Amino acid sequence: MAASYVERLEERVSSGMSPACVGIDPRPERLPAGVAPGRSAAERIVAFVREVLPSIARRAPVVKPNIAFFEALGADGWRAYEEVCRLARAGGLLVIGDVKRGDIGSTAAAYARAHFAHADALTVNPYLGTDAIEPFLAACREAGRAIYVLVRTSNPGAAMFQSLRDTRGHTVAEVVARAVDRWGEDTASPGGFASVGAVVGATRADELLALRRAMPRAPLLIPGVGAQGGRITDLRAAFDGRGFGAVVNQSRAMLECFEPGDPDWRDRIDAALDAFHAELQDLLRDRAATTANPHP
Amino acid sequence: MAASYVERLEERVSSGMSPACVGIDPRPERLPAGVAPGRSAAERIVAFVREVLPSIARRAPVVKPNIAFFEALGADGWRAYEEVCRLARAGGLLVIGDVKRGDIGSTAAAYARAHFAHADALTVNPYLGTDAIEPFLAACREAGRAIYVLVRTSNPGAAMFQSLRDTRGHTVAEVVARAVDRWGEDTASPGGFASVGAVVGATRADELLALRRAMPRAPLLIPGVGAQGGRITDLRAAFDGRGFGAVVNQSRAMLECFEPGDPDWRDRIDAALDAFHAELQDLLRDRAATTANPHP
Repeated sequence: MAASYVERLEERVSSGMSPACVGIDPRPERLPAGVAPGRSAAERIVAFVREVLPSIARRAPVVKPNIAFFEALGADGWRAYEEVCRLARAGGLLVIGDVKRGDIGSTAAAYARAHFAHADALTVNPYLGTDAIEPFLAACREAGRAIYVLVRTSNPGAAMFQSLRDTRGHTVAEVVARAVDRWGEDTASPGGFASVGAVVGATRADELLALRRAMPRAPLLIPGVGAQGGRITDLRAAFDGRGFGAVVNQSRAMLECFEPGDPDWRDRIDAALDAFHAELQDLLRDRAATTANPHP
Repeated sequence: MAASYVERLEERVSSGMSPACVGIDPRPERLPAGVAPGRSAAERIVAFVREVLPSIARRAPVVKPNIAFFEALGADGWRAYEEVCRLARAGGLLVIGDVKRGDIGSTAAAYARAHFAHADALTVNPYLGTDAIEPFLAACREAGRAIYVLVRTSNPGAAMFQSLRDTRGHTVAEVVARAVDRWGEDTASPGGFASVGAVVGATRADELLALRRAMPRAPLLIPGVGAQGGRITDLRAAFDGRGFGAVVNQSRAMLECFEPGDPDWRDRIDAALDAFHAELQDLLRDRAATTANPHP
């Protein structure tokens, strides 16, 4: 089997890249005005992504297209999503399909087949339990793919159900985290991390340590930095001393960091990506300096 | 505003239709061999659905295309989903888009925009809390649409998280059910039911009464009858004395009730639809006979 998603991610971080994930949430009205003017929204999105991918690929290992913004454009948007995933992988990037699917077994199998055709890793929703996750696990075990299970999301309403406490005092998010740990058994990379990971919002840094303990081998996908209020400096517990264990995502702060009419939008994206890289490198240096144990 | 989804559903049930929902989960290998042979899988699906829709529309008020089976065919499948929804609505059917979406606010807004373009009602996942639901609620309040929130699903693994008990002894599903009740405030139809409903699996008939009490105004979407083991005769608590309050879904037992090579597949579907109608009418007669109170 070729190197798995987690192995390839660890290779890139080992060779000096930051564990940065660039979210692709394209809104037509926020695209640079000069990119493919007069074409359809879906075509303009593909043209924009095609133009920024080399810049991203020099600075970050992973992109995360959010399929909702493509679905908003119907079948043409769906085709654009497929093309964005294809271009990113052809350019050497790993792709997390942010699809948040979750359904009963036979339907989950259809989703897994549909979405692993385009992405190396997927986000999935745990509400339906193990049989909704199983078809995705099969692809993790057999084809080197990975999933990030929603555990503790970054949005204000997340506490409503995720922070309910069970009779033993554990939050629902913690119970899901322990399931993530079990689902990932037998999928560990040489670096010690499993192919079954978790989404934990940066806005919940106060819960990060407890969740990390419940799922020590789970690679984390951490959204919520920047516009949503999470701070990179609060994310030390996500990483081990080698910088393995998580990717931090930023979407709008990267690919909407300019006004649509700004002719210097390429430079602004490069500067935003460089600043993101520098912040993550600071965090990892800090993490490495304060741990004797290379594994969390 | 034109009549809402819930009002139109109640009209159809009042005029003698059964509260039946026909699930459209098309698998190419299970289509009748004689339908559009040699064409693409997506084209064959559309041709099959086009042919069965009049039969369905004479017997049932609602269809529920499950988008996973369309996504499995990529962008062509997505286009087929749009076409199936369009054909069903043009044929007088109500359409529940079984999409189970759920994401943070701005992304949920993109999903709501994307999917209410094709369907009268949608299934949504509650794990992310209120702000993930809010953009869908706006369409319920302002445009007569409806949502069915996953509360207690029909699959074997559902208990894993949905049946966790909180410190007050309520299951997660019951907590979600109470949220469904609140979300539906101010959306009640003249018949007394809200535009915010819930998915409750027929395999969990033992929990149906408690969930109904937690959300007395919520229209229910009940899957899990037939292949999954749920029985229609166990579903009395879902309905009021008028037959309002729920739709029962069957998918494979309707549209895969024949072998692909069977030349009489049309007759078999008609017979399956007729039997489904008769079973539901028996249930509703039984329900009406045993209640003095027309409202649950």
